[in-house]
Amino acid sequence: MNLILLFEHDFIEARRRVRLEGRRLRHLREVHRAVPGDELCVGEAGGLIGSGRIISLDRSAAEMEVHFERTPPAPLPVTLILALPRPKFLRRVLFSASALGIKRIFVLNSYRVEKSYWQSPFLKKEQIEKQIILGLEQARDTIIPEVLLRPLFKPFMEDELPEIMQGTLPLLADPHAGEPCPRGLSGPVTLAVGPEGGFIPYEAGKFLSAGFRAVSLGERILNVESAVPALLSRLF
Amino acid sequence: MNLILLFEHDFIEARRRVRLEGRRLRHLREVHRAVPGDELCVGEAGGLIGSGRIISLDRSAAEMEVHFERTPPAPLPVTLILALPRPKFLRRVLFSASALGIKRIFVLNSYRVEKSYWQSPFLKKEQIEKQIILGLEQARDTIIPEVLLRPLFKPFMEDELPEIMQGTLPLLADPHAGEPCPRGLSGPVTLAVGPEGGFIPYEAGKFLSAGFRAVSLGERILNVESAVPALLSRLF
Repeated sequence: MNLILLFEHDFIEARRRVRLEGRRLRHLREVHRAVPGDELCVGEAGGLIGSGRIISLDRSAAEMEVHFERTPPAPLPVTLILALPRPKFLRRVLFSASALGIKRIFVLNSYRVEKSYWQSPFLKKEQIEKQIILGLEQARDTIIPEVLLRPLFKPFMEDELPEIMQGTLPLLADPHAGEPCPRGLSGPVTLAVGPEGGFIPYEAGKFLSAGFRAVSLGERILNVESAVPALLSRLF
Repeated sequence: MNLILLFEHDFIEARRRVRLEGRRLRHLREVHRAVPGDELCVGEAGGLIGSGRIISLDRSAAEMEVHFERTPPAPLPVTLILALPRPKFLRRVLFSASALGIKRIFVLNSYRVEKSYWQSPFLKKEQIEKQIILGLEQARDTIIPEVLLRPLFKPFMEDELPEIMQGTLPLLADPHAGEPCPRGLSGPVTLAVGPEGGFIPYEAGKFLSAGFRAVSLGERILNVESAVPALLSRLF
């Protein structure tokens, strides 16, 4: 937790004073070993970053006086389209995509996604929110990404994708592609990442015929946890 | 498992025929749902990549006829110096560093590494080997990386580092550095990655005075799991 992300319900005095309990209190006590007087980095969900001074802290709550002064890091201009990975990987990918600064993630079905994954408790709204908030706290960001579940491949590809990819460079990550992943872009990208084993030819064909370019990071096949940071760091 | 890594003890006929049990057998049956006649990618530990045809497969063992024909992907010319992360992260970082093609990893102590981490069962030789083999299987590589534990910071820095970094570009990952991480290198790099919270100033100073340059991926602070693939993908 490199930043304490603050929500409206944390404030006991508007934009001036917060009261923290639960996970963040435990983190302050056990990891930061914070004491009254300590200054810590804070951010307003959706807003500015600043600092907070601990006024009081005990087993039940911490109170901080906060002020906000600077904008969060620029978002990555990327929409990520991610075939639903195994749920334990999904959590980590949501965490890292959020830390890396992605602000819109579509989680998509694919032939190679096991149907049971869609029943995972990690797809519940609170669980998704938890991971993206942890990612923002890691990276010192405040802007909460949207995570949109799309359990039907074809309607997504036909009805939503054209608008999503408009005005962006649409790229399909594919370890077997001949074209290397471009470097140092600045414009917006729509990035599609397949499941373990990749999108099946029919699905990859749908992306390609929609205008996606298949690009590769090299002949090594990475798992989705490594591939997402590796792709984003290469692209931008 | 995009490649089945084969060791000397797997061969029942030299370089021609193997017998698999345990984890790899289960994976063949449960994930690949392999049947006799299937062709799968195989590799000889430390050697070539090729293919294997399943001759027989039941609950107790699988036998394959194998042949080898091509070299594994080029290694990354990187020595990674990694402050020991929390053990569950260590496992994942070893997996991904191995998949990314790093062939030498020093796991180093640092002031901010909790002492208890050095007692973790994940630092046992077999546990480390397991992760690096899984990484090679993921990336279709055969060359086993060296993982070297260095629980004493100062002797490592003074006695070993000068030789390790010789002839390489020595870089210290530091989210607060002014200099951006270079892109698209081809020469060898020694890359140092600190613990959560970073190396303390004394330690960072040791790296800098040895000739390391502090470089950053931007103002976002990534956890080690994302930082390692992001750094390597930016560098090469």
